[in-house]
Amino acid sequence: MSKALVSIVMGSDSDLPVMKEAAEVLKSFQIPYEIDIVSAHRTPEKLFEFAKTAHTRGIKAIIAGAGGAAHLPGMLAAISPLPIIGVPIHSSNSIDGWDSVLSILQMPGGVPVATVALNGAKNAGLLAVQILATHDTSLLDEMIKYKDSLKKAVLKKAETLSANL
Amino acid sequence: MSKALVSIVMGSDSDLPVMKEAAEVLKSFQIPYEIDIVSAHRTPEKLFEFAKTAHTRGIKAIIAGAGGAAHLPGMLAAISPLPIIGVPIHSSNSIDGWDSVLSILQMPGGVPVATVALNGAKNAGLLAVQILATHDTSLLDEMIKYKDSLKKAVLKKAETLSANL
Amino acid sequence: MSKALVSIVMGSDSDLPVMKEAAEVLKSFQIPYEIDIVSAHRTPEKLFEFAKTAHTRGIKAIIAGAGGAAHLPGMLAAISPLPIIGVPIHSSNSIDGWDSVLSILQMPGGVPVATVALNGAKNAGLLAVQILATHDTSLLDEMIKYKDSLKKAVLKKAETLSANL
Amino acid sequence: MSKALVSIVMGSDSDLPVMKEAAEVLKSFQIPYEIDIVSAHRTPEKLFEFAKTAHTRGIKAIIAGAGGAAHLPGMLAAISPLPIIGVPIHSSNSIDGWDSVLSILQMPGGVPVATVALNGAKNAGLLAVQILATHDTSLLDEMIKYKDSLKKAVLKKAETLSANL
Amino acid sequence: MSKALVSIVMGSDSDLPVMKEAAEVLKSFQIPYEIDIVSAHRTPEKLFEFAKTAHTRGIKAIIAGAGGAAHLPGMLAAISPLPIIGVPIHSSNSIDGWDSVLSILQMPGGVPVATVALNGAKNAGLLAVQILATHDTSLLDEMIKYKDSLKKAVLKKAETLSANL
Amino acid sequence: MSKALVSIVMGSDSDLPVMKEAAEVLKSFQIPYEIDIVSAHRTPEKLFEFAKTAHTRGIKAIIAGAGGAAHLPGMLAAISPLPIIGVPIHSSNSIDGWDSVLSILQMPGGVPVATVALNGAKNAGLLAVQILATHDTSLLDEMIKYKDSLKKAVLKKAETLSANL
Amino acid sequence: MSKALVSIVMGSDSDLPVMKEAAEVLKSFQIPYEIDIVSAHRTPEKLFEFAKTAHTRGIKAIIAGAGGAAHLPGMLAAISPLPIIGVPIHSSNSIDGWDSVLSILQMPGGVPVATVALNGAKNAGLLAVQILATHDTSLLDEMIKYKDSLKKAVLKKAETLSANL
Amino acid sequence: MSKALVSIVMGSDSDLPVMKEAAEVLKSFQIPYEIDIVSAHRTPEKLFEFAKTAHTRGIKAIIAGAGGAAHLPGMLAAISPLPIIGVPIHSSNSIDGWDSVLSILQMPGGVPVATVALNGAKNAGLLAVQILATHDTSLLDEMIKYKDSLKKAVLKKAETLSANL
Repeated sequence: MSKALVSIVMGSDSDLPVMKEAAEVLKSFQIPYEIDIVSAHRTPEKLFEFAKTAHTRGIKAIIAGAGGAAHLPGMLAAISPLPIIGVPIHSSNSIDGWDSVLSILQMPGGVPVATVALNGAKNAGLLAVQILATHDTSLLDEMIKYKDSLKKAVLKKAETLSANL
Repeated sequence: MSKALVSIVMGSDSDLPVMKEAAEVLKSFQIPYEIDIVSAHRTPEKLFEFAKTAHTRGIKAIIAGAGGAAHLPGMLAAISPLPIIGVPIHSSNSIDGWDSVLSILQMPGGVPVATVALNGAKNAGLLAVQILATHDTSLLDEMIKYKDSLKKAVLKKAETLSANL
Repeated sequence: MSKALVSIVMGSDSDLPVMKEAAEVLKSFQIPYEIDIVSAHRTPEKLFEFAKTAHTRGIKAIIAGAGGAAHLPGMLAAISPLPIIGVPIHSSNSIDGWDSVLSILQMPGGVPVATVALNGAKNAGLLAVQILATHDTSLLDEMIKYKDSLKKAVLKKAETLSANL
Repeated sequence: MSKALVSIVMGSDSDLPVMKEAAEVLKSFQIPYEIDIVSAHRTPEKLFEFAKTAHTRGIKAIIAGAGGAAHLPGMLAAISPLPIIGVPIHSSNSIDGWDSVLSILQMPGGVPVATVALNGAKNAGLLAVQILATHDTSLLDEMIKYKDSLKKAVLKKAETLSANL
Repeated sequence: MSKALVSIVMGSDSDLPVMKEAAEVLKSFQIPYEIDIVSAHRTPEKLFEFAKTAHTRGIKAIIAGAGGAAHLPGMLAAISPLPIIGVPIHSSNSIDGWDSVLSILQMPGGVPVATVALNGAKNAGLLAVQILATHDTSLLDEMIKYKDSLKKAVLKKAETLSANL
Repeated sequence: MSKALVSIVMGSDSDLPVMKEAAEVLKSFQIPYEIDIVSAHRTPEKLFEFAKTAHTRGIKAIIAGAGGAAHLPGMLAAISPLPIIGVPIHSSNSIDGWDSVLSILQMPGGVPVATVALNGAKNAGLLAVQILATHDTSLLDEMIKYKDSLKKAVLKKAETLSANL
Repeated sequence: MSKALVSIVMGSDSDLPVMKEAAEVLKSFQIPYEIDIVSAHRTPEKLFEFAKTAHTRGIKAIIAGAGGAAHLPGMLAAISPLPIIGVPIHSSNSIDGWDSVLSILQMPGGVPVATVALNGAKNAGLLAVQILATHDTSLLDEMIKYKDSLKKAVLKKAETLSANL
Repeated sequence: MSKALVSIVMGSDSDLPVMKEAAEVLKSFQIPYEIDIVSAHRTPEKLFEFAKTAHTRGIKAIIAGAGGAAHLPGMLAAISPLPIIGVPIHSSNSIDGWDSVLSILQMPGGVPVATVALNGAKNAGLLAVQILATHDTSLLDEMIKYKDSLKKAVLKKAETLSANL
């Protein structure tokens, strides 16, 4: 695999079932990526080291998923100059996901996190593709095709529905 | 002004006091931008036309602010292949801002909106800069300097606090 | 079947189990209807075309169901002059349904959506009947009979309860 | 004034500042209307009498506004066969408006209330017009013109913004 | 059974599994009671008749359970001079029970409903006993004994826990 | 003044502006009452002593108001056999009143608190009157008259509105 | 076992599955502890006695878990001078845990409860260890080792993830 | 001043009006403390350095206040072995304080933060005193006196109320 352009990190291996959807999107767009567990609360030094150096290793965007009092995306945004895409994860003992959503979304001025929907790792992957596509016209074309494929899938389902009435 | 790279749109001119913070960030990073009112609910044709063509005009990212049942960012994401940054706005008659936040954040799989905090237009501007910086090392350096300036401002305030004890 | 007077649309075929309750109501009142999948986020052109023309095809009211950041009812309301009845759907990954409810209910001034309860497609069907009945006295009589049947069903259950004490 | 087609009722005279926006819409569309105070909790007999007879007096739709534990719209819907449009009002001592919204919106199957946004009386008026327009093509034309006027107002504001940059 | 002193009503027979806990409490205190289904939304006339006459039949307190946009307790309170005890029920399609709670609790000044916890029919029964006990010293003594029995049950569980350590 | 039948207690003197509405209701129905500050968190011994003895002093019902993590009503209910009416108070630093409401309403099975609306001290007073009226027909008559006076006040306002149209 | 330094109490034996996680933590750090059921609402005298005397028996910190309108931690804090660690428990009939969280967290000024996450008994145990470690350097060293073990566990999972890619 | 035993840190100087209440409590108990601005998002290196070394400098407990997506208390807890007391601050653009509360409270297992009420810095100070008092009997005596002073202040207010009736 060529050098990773996107880094997918998550606070716990229990987040993997959600976060692998981001990886699948990147794979389908043939974007090289890396995937790792980085816990803000359990491996803060690794978080620092990772965030300090990601852009020097050629990473262009970071996708970070975490649940509960989710500090990983925001702490990455504090340290790295790269765009950070935050995925709130509905973990067990979460209060209906509100904790993850609010602790990722409500970042103070100066330190943005691009937040997607609860468990929205797929969209995080697509956002990373869109970011890379801002300077890659063939990737932009693929994104246009992807949106077209969404349309076709819905139209097909509409036809099926119509046929079954 | 050179050709706009970022487009700032909002659903109503009452959103301007919040959204101009995005413009100020872009100005300070010397990113050419455009600013316009595009209402999903009142000018849907303009929204369609705008979203269909933005990427063909050289726009790289769109910042969209809206309040209440905020459909502008999501509808732009439905049509445009560009990264859409959504700013939930705490408008009058909003239910504490929850309506704006949820109707921008909770997009379905396939159609991402990069959501920032309630009224977080400043962070939307910074996110646009970070997106552009993924392929512009001097802009990345400026983003690193910006983060450094945040640090220095806090350290100075800490000194002032210490001196006043 | 004669020409449809009511159109039932939904954002995804996964909404069908909920939305078919609207169809059943219309069928029981012998109101001709059509049913289709129209996704604001995946088929925006179809949404536009549909909304622009529905009233020219003889449609009198539109019932639209969607979940999460639910933009379908509001976008139909933006484009069509017809009364739009919105059904918030409790989809998977929804935050307890709040996202669907608020992104359908909290429409800005000038662009109403008649919102019913979470998953309340049955009531959406009844509302469509009531709208048609405003100019159809025999339909109004049937609505009065329907309400009477609700009463009788409850009274019968009360009797059963009483008999079992 | 000719015979009222729409009835606007509210639980308290303190709701009048919000509810008069519905009246203004109806006036601007030249729809004859009546306006009254009917409290579910303080004048239940009047509520019953009103709801039982409204359709016999030629009323086609009822707009009902109430705050807190708002029972007026739902009780009208229980008794009258007409379409009931509910306006949740953010009254004092309300818990951020959530009580009004939920006690109007979450009606059980069989008894719909067409709910609009918190304090959304203007949209309630427009919904009543749309209901009447389902069988009045000149009124439908006026609704199309109204939506066009919304568009023009936004486009004008966009021009002003553009001129001031 | 002697003449009922407490009336237990509910909006639907689906509320019975919760509401029978109120009946069990009354039975255990040997308070004569009646139980019925009275739907504010489906049998409004029965509600009126019931509420108008309950106190003339010797009823001293009414326990009313309802879910969703729960109007039964509040409408009874609007009509009857008796103390009304409201039980919010977590029905299906409820938004986590918030709708039931708020539409029962947040009554306007002048029209109280004594609200208990979500699904708290047992406590509604106890409250009715306490109300009757205000003028029945032997019943008050039984309430004191009841509270004592709660204490003993906990102390016994504490002993069991201690023994198992 | 004759011996108090109702006791009004509150956690802090800052609750007095809300709680005096309960006193005014009792005064208008000529119910003798007492009023005191009893803080669950600051005067727990006074709370115990008060709750243990209130019924022995002839008190028939206790109205207790508190804000934030409001434990006063629930702890009174734990100790006293009397009906406890809880008034959630929207104190400063409350999270929109939700803390007061939930910590009073959501009592466990066996220990009821009759909860009224946020800041609903007036209704707490009326509930106390209704409880006393269960065994005092002249008081019940006055409650019926009171409800009639509410009706007349609304009807008068409706007339005024009608006259001003 | 030597004399208990930490006391774990809970409102009901149904809280034991959650609260035993606190005990396990204390056991692993070899902190002597006691565990008991103390219900604020069912055994208020035991609560008083327990809270009045805990510090005289050598207890240094109290961990208290409760659900719903959870008054145990706050009432302990009202009476005992010791640090009280509150564990909100997501009991059945809780409204998503919000009631437990808010009725423990939102204590008034002067009466702190150290609140941990919903069902966060493990963290309550760790907090008790940290409190004891403020004056026990070997315990502080063990806490440092514990945090190190968390780090190692995450790093190992990261390796496993990496190996499986 | 002797060497600080407690460290008060906050994310921004705008938090000072709230956080100084913690300092005032410590001063009144004659606990030496230090106060500083440490921003998780703007000065992450300072946060790391501070958290790594606080316990080596003789600090026994850390009080950390922050608003919005508040990561300061949780990141301190990730790095330092000391007890961390978190103060959620209701900052501007906060969503009613929920973001601060949830992002401090809902820490994952292994990494506790002792959370106090929204803006509850006074209680954070008291908790720090209680922690120090676990091994300082004279300080424990002062805490008992403090609680006694709270009682006396309430009893005096109760007397004043009684005198003014």
